[in-house]
Parts: sequence; C-alpha cells; structure tokens
Amino acid sequence: MEKIGKYTFLAEPFHCDFSGRLFMGHLGNHLLNAADFHSSDRGFGMKYLMTIQRSWVLSRLAIEMDEMPMQYTKFNVETWVESAMRFFTSRNFAVVGEDGHQYGFGRSIWAMIDTESRQPTDIFSIDNGAINNWIVNDKECPIDKGGRVKMSDEAELVHTIDTYYNDVDINGHINSVKYIEHVLDLWPLDWYREHQVKRFEIAYVAEAHAGDQLSFYREQTDEQAYCVRIVRTDGTECCRSKVVFK
Amino acid sequence: MEKIGKYTFLAEPFHCDFSGRLFMGHLGNHLLNAADFHSSDRGFGMKYLMTIQRSWVLSRLAIEMDEMPMQYTKFNVETWVESAMRFFTSRNFAVVGEDGHQYGFGRSIWAMIDTESRQPTDIFSIDNGAINNWIVNDKECPIDKGGRVKMSDEAELVHTIDTYYNDVDINGHINSVKYIEHVLDLWPLDWYREHQVKRFEIAYVAEAHAGDQLSFYREQTDEQAYCVRIVRTDGTECCRSKVVFK
Repeated sequence: MEKIGKYTFLAEPFHCDFSGRLFMGHLGNHLLNAADFHSSDRGFGMKYLMTIQRSWVLSRLAIEMDEMPMQYTKFNVETWVESAMRFFTSRNFAVVGEDGHQYGFGRSIWAMIDTESRQPTDIFSIDNGAINNWIVNDKECPIDKGGRVKMSDEAELVHTIDTYYNDVDINGHINSVKYIEHVLDLWPLDWYREHQVKRFEIAYVAEAHAGDQLSFYREQTDEQAYCVRIVRTDGTECCRSKVVFK
Repeated sequence: MEKIGKYTFLAEPFHCDFSGRLFMGHLGNHLLNAADFHSSDRGFGMKYLMTIQRSWVLSRLAIEMDEMPMQYTKFNVETWVESAMRFFTSRNFAVVGEDGHQYGFGRSIWAMIDTESRQPTDIFSIDNGAINNWIVNDKECPIDKGGRVKMSDEAELVHTIDTYYNDVDINGHINSVKYIEHVLDLWPLDWYREHQVKRFEIAYVAEAHAGDQLSFYREQTDEQAYCVRIVRTDGTECCRSKVVFK
C-alpha cells in the first residue's frame, strides 16, 4: 500500500459559500476524513482504536489555500504522516485538482489518548510502532508549521454564542469542525466580498461541552491577520485560532 | 440508464450526533445531492440549468426515518421522479443499507424558476419534456405526502438567531440545509437523549438573506409533534416545519 493516501471529494453545492467556493469548515471536515480513511486503511484508524480504548485527538490544524475549489469541482486530498513521536504525530495534506492543480496544503498534529483515563498514551504501542512504517519524509508541504498563537491581553470580546444539539459530536464535545465555522462567522458577509481566507489555524486546548457558552476574543495582529481566543462558560480557554486573509 | 438513481454515502464521524447517528441536516444534504446527481446524469441537473438561466427550487422536503445510519456506515440513497407537472415535480428517496436494510424514505417537491425573473417556468420546456421519460410510478414510497403545515396563532416565540457567513448559500439566501439544523437546535441536547426524530418536514415559503434575523415560533400539535414557523426580520414567513419525535 502507498504511504501517501489519496481521496476524492466533491465541492458540494450546499457546502459552498455565496461566492461558489467551498467553505473552510467543510474543507476542514474533508481533511479530517482523509486522515481517518488513511489511518484506517493502514491499521491505526479511529474505528479500530475504539475497540482498544484509544482515540486520536486533534491538537492543531492549519490550512493554507491559494484558492478554494469552486462548487461541483472534484478534488483530491492527499495525506501522509510526516513524523511520529511517542505522544504526537504530524500529518500533512495537499489539496490537488484532478488536473494536478494545487489548491493548497494542510498540517495537523494529533495525540493519542486512552478513552477511559483521557490521558495521552504511547502511539508506538499500537502494533509495535507500526506507524513508523508509514512515515514520508520526502514529500514537501510548503506551508508554515505555525506554532503557539500569540495573543496579548488586548483581545476584545466580539461575540458570545450558545451551543446546541448540532454543535456536539459523538464524544459529547463541541465538534472540531463547528469551531471553524463559528470563528469565520465573526466577520460579516460583506467582509468576505473583499477578502478570502488565506490561512486558517486552530489549536484545540480544552474541550467544551453541550450547553457551554463560547466567548470569542479577537485581536488584530497584522494587517491581514487576526487571532481569536475561544473561552467556555467557566472561563477556560478551549481553542486559539489565527486567520490570515488576502 | 436506469430511471432510479442510486448513490452511496458514508455517515461521516463529524456528521453524527452525540449518539453516533447521522444528523438530520446532513442526511437532508445527502438527499439533495442525490437529487442533483440523478438529474445531472439525466440531462436536467442544476449545472446544466445554470447555463440556460434556470434553476430548481426546493419547495418541500419530508424525511421519515425508522432509524438513522450509525457513524461509519455506508448507505445508499435511491431517488426517482414520481411525477411531473408543468410547474412542479415530485421526487422521492429511499435510504437503504448496503445489506438492503431500509432506514427510511423521503419526499420532495421542486419548482423550476427563471434565474433572471425569479418566476416559475415550465419544466416541460427543458429538452421537450424529457423529464417525462424518467417518471417511475411503480416504486413505493410508504410515507405520508404531508401537506400544508397547519398552525394556529398560539405558536410561541421560542428562539431568535442572527444569520452569518456560514448560513448563506451561493444564491445569497439562507442555506436550505441550515434551516434543518436551526429547527432541530430548538430542543436541548437532553431532549435527544430520550427522543429521536421520526419525521422531519419543511416547506420553504420565502427566502431569507444574509444578515436577516430569524425568529422561531413553535407549537405542539400532538403528543410527539411540533410545528415551527420561521419568520425573517421584516415579518415575512420563510419556512414552516413539522417535527415528529419518537
């Protein structure tokens, strides 16, 4: 089996914004699905991990796009494991048109937890470190790795939302993909007539639960760059995100 | 080509609720995609209609499910045209497991409009009434056709939401699928621990636009049945929905 997985998706009409381009939240979902298909096909996917009380937990996701696929476009998501350490693995993505056109790239960092204790567990304990057989270190992912999103205390509370049934995933937590939508909803529709998302970064810090209120603090850190801190009802920071527009 | 189209979907993990079952909104999206694939394969799909300034407009959608597919389940959506009249066509759906297991059914009514004038146009004008070649009148769709959702003036205002970037579709209208999510978000998560959606009906009456506020009026009409009226900022009714729980 190839080390790099390749999965085809369609920019479905109801997944596209007013300009006919795929929403970032749905692209994020496709990347996470590609990750899951790739790992499942190679023996360390979520479905298998559930049977041994383990789960992948997404820690960081960064997506940088030259262009978003237009509605009805088929595109491929290529994904591969760039590196694996005991507690973290990094997985990259390339979003490529059927004609080879490069739309953009993604980077993600994952931990593995014990679903009973919720504690990090050793990734190499799965099938005698089998993940090492899948590492690809010669495929380029030409986007910035990102890092801790730095924010000052100047960030302004710009929005607060309640969370509902459709925000909650199978673990009872606020759905990783919904955060992307909520962050991008901080800008009005008219903003998107003039700007497109160049890069979207999110780091998941602590889980929020059904019924939590989420408060969004935003700070402009560069001409086209904004950082967002999401805080749940009890004051704990859940996520940090950085959005760079073009 | 077969009159009945059959398309395979996967109950993706981020499209499933806390109980591991596919969200109704995502199922609705799959049905609408199946409709689009079926009509495109047969020469009267959205993508072709766009080139001649026509568009299908969804008028009603009813989905009745014995059970929702669980996460990671592959299932087929079968769809066929039940009847066509000058200004309306009815299209049905069956949601069937790969092993033949019947999950449930759907019914939809569509109009065709001129995208310039926004006026209804004659469906039979497309390719000399070609849609008539695709009518299937011997496949059963054993769910109630539904009809006008009857509500009294007793309906109570239970929720008001602002609409954002992610709510808006390529036509600049509030996305048909998002309404389904917003209606089902009227019940708290705990409600869904005890109840499942047996039947979901929605009739699209008038379009709401980006930035409209949507007010939800709800009335219980039977032991397990609720009707919901969605009203946009200017007081115009946009949708009516009926939800039957089990």
